[in-house]
Amino acid sequence: MALIVQKYGGTSVGSPERIKNLARRVARFKALGHQIVVVVSAMSGETNRLIGLAREVMAEPDPRELDVMVSTGEQVTIGLTAMALMELGIKAKSYTGAQVRIVTDDAHTKARILHIDEKRIRADLDAGNVVVVAGFQGVDEDGNITTLGRGGSDTTGVALAAALKADECQIYTDVDGVYTTDPRVVPEARRLKSITFEEMLELASQGSKVLQIRSVEFAGKYKVKLRVLSSFEEDGEGTLITFEDSENKDSNMEQPIISGIAFNRDEAKITVLGVPDKPGIAYQILGPVADANIDVDMIIQNTGADGTTDFTFTVHKNEMPKALSILRDQVQAHIGAREISGDDKIAKVSVVGVGMRSHVGIASQMFRTLAEEGINLQMISTSEIKIAVVIDEKYMELAVRVLHKAFGLEAA
Amino acid sequence: MALIVQKYGGTSVGSPERIKNLARRVARFKALGHQIVVVVSAMSGETNRLIGLAREVMAEPDPRELDVMVSTGEQVTIGLTAMALMELGIKAKSYTGAQVRIVTDDAHTKARILHIDEKRIRADLDAGNVVVVAGFQGVDEDGNITTLGRGGSDTTGVALAAALKADECQIYTDVDGVYTTDPRVVPEARRLKSITFEEMLELASQGSKVLQIRSVEFAGKYKVKLRVLSSFEEDGEGTLITFEDSENKDSNMEQPIISGIAFNRDEAKITVLGVPDKPGIAYQILGPVADANIDVDMIIQNTGADGTTDFTFTVHKNEMPKALSILRDQVQAHIGAREISGDDKIAKVSVVGVGMRSHVGIASQMFRTLAEEGINLQMISTSEIKIAVVIDEKYMELAVRVLHKAFGLEAA
Repeated sequence: MALIVQKYGGTSVGSPERIKNLARRVARFKALGHQIVVVVSAMSGETNRLIGLAREVMAEPDPRELDVMVSTGEQVTIGLTAMALMELGIKAKSYTGAQVRIVTDDAHTKARILHIDEKRIRADLDAGNVVVVAGFQGVDEDGNITTLGRGGSDTTGVALAAALKADECQIYTDVDGVYTTDPRVVPEARRLKSITFEEMLELASQGSKVLQIRSVEFAGKYKVKLRVLSSFEEDGEGTLITFEDSENKDSNMEQPIISGIAFNRDEAKITVLGVPDKPGIAYQILGPVADANIDVDMIIQNTGADGTTDFTFTVHKNEMPKALSILRDQVQAHIGAREISGDDKIAKVSVVGVGMRSHVGIASQMFRTLAEEGINLQMISTSEIKIAVVIDEKYMELAVRVLHKAFGLEAA
Repeated sequence: MALIVQKYGGTSVGSPERIKNLARRVARFKALGHQIVVVVSAMSGETNRLIGLAREVMAEPDPRELDVMVSTGEQVTIGLTAMALMELGIKAKSYTGAQVRIVTDDAHTKARILHIDEKRIRADLDAGNVVVVAGFQGVDEDGNITTLGRGGSDTTGVALAAALKADECQIYTDVDGVYTTDPRVVPEARRLKSITFEEMLELASQGSKVLQIRSVEFAGKYKVKLRVLSSFEEDGEGTLITFEDSENKDSNMEQPIISGIAFNRDEAKITVLGVPDKPGIAYQILGPVADANIDVDMIIQNTGADGTTDFTFTVHKNEMPKALSILRDQVQAHIGAREISGDDKIAKVSVVGVGMRSHVGIASQMFRTLAEEGINLQMISTSEIKIAVVIDEKYMELAVRVLHKAFGLEAA
């Protein structure tokens, strides 16, 4: 008998019919003798409907009150899910985040979980109940309703699995696992049976949208065994996210060097040209950008021959105009930069794999493959298990396809 | 400076536009220096939508889980209302029933309020906030969400007014007060400036649907000054529901003998004919009916000349077939009744007024008025401040009109 936390997203609970399907799946697990905690999101579209309503009465909705409203989305789903289970003769009981007590800080609309009181859930499980918990929400120390921000239901699932020391946390999504890359771009993309947490983090942060990055970090931190599965497939085994250094040593021996290729075109590149190369320049450029709450992703600095340097970084496309005007108004004259330029017609493509640690030549193979297609590299950034390049947006799909082939990812 | 509890029903919060209107009204009261607690219902139609969803997954929705779902209706409204107030620059804070702590028993879908913890609300009021509370809902001692049943938002308003010792509880509805009778039946019907609690109770239980009877009882018990007003009218003073024996002594001197005429056609009449007139007959007839959870309203027993008696009572129309079959199957042979008959083509018409206590001849005036129109009386039942008659359904409107006129209720 295992204790399993199953998280179902918005499309999996998008209609009463789908909730009944979900209940039948849970019933099959229950019949095997497992204890099940089900975490559900709001029905698809519901969160946006509620935010839209809020905006009709307040131009910039108050965060505390928005959380009060938006949290009702999952609250409806937990009631429906518990009832669908009961209709199959299964004992079930629902909890809102506040009822569990999933205690968070008071950062409304993007709260972080502080601790979870798992006693009531455990008692219910021991009494034979399936426990249904509202994802995405919690309560602060003063009893105010909070939400964890978009995608927070994954985090709820992982955090509950950690608190309950569950044997596995299963995340049911629209896709049947993590792929070597997006099958819409490369039809030969292949589902991975397993992937390490580090790789998953790199894939998630590089734009693969299967799992919310925060939940992966959380799972890594608390050693929660995470599995991504399709909610529309009966017997899929999905993709297991593993700890490289523990139980998966053996399978790592056969692990391919590269696990997957991630990409995104949400970023824009900003270049500060001809800056005198002095200590403190990076801070003088990025300080005002950070003060404006603009997230920076890649950062690259190259020293030129003439005692000046070019400084390049990427931000979300939507923030490029704001970042440019901050730099031009507050920074350029101050640091004596020659020019500030922006480019939002870029894409980032990354190859990810723990195998590259012990294999030389991955970078050169990547660069050669792209050069053979005449694709120019505008930025390069590397980590232990990832090489990312920024290229012209129009070559993105081509780059992903040729890299997928070059690293043999189609092979079964 | 007064502390006022204002309760707004489903149509008053039926759209973002109406919620903004509500906020403007609250703002005007706030500008006068009052402390305001706003109690809101779910947006009209929302509760039925949620119940419909529940029925799609469970034929007979589980009461605990239904409460979890249905309570989200008001939760959305409190968030919207608080935000609409903030948008006008007014400090506001919302509370669900569980957050206030409106503690109820655990009778899901029809819970009763046990006590209210008013400390947080009072602190918020003292800090200059308008406090917005979800009507219709509470929480049991174990933290389970409960609802008070249909119309329970009125009860929430009155209970909060009692707990906070508010100066007045204002119930905003579709109508601008309590009328001498339904203006759709008698266009000359007149709004009453005040009415006593007892009269209001009789009118409510007799079918006048302005206020939920439970909230009136509650207000009477805790001496809450209750006022019914229109949410669509700017400066109406509505109808004040008064305590006859206290502050309204003077106004009572001018009070008309009859305050209003109530009517309903939701009942059916069941007659048990030719029952041997022995002790215990009433219990033998009504016991099995009560055991089947069928509510009985009027009960009349007449002793005949031949040692037998006829026993008549009324039930809701929908329950007549069930009541008849219980009597025919379980009771008739046992008590030796000659016949059991039912009639659902009846209406009940009542004249209500505290003035009739000290005035003789009201009953005879009522009976004469109806007789002059050729309307036969099938049942008569009286209380201290009410005379009710059962007549053929088809004469209902006529009866109400002629009685309204006979008792001079059109006069200003």
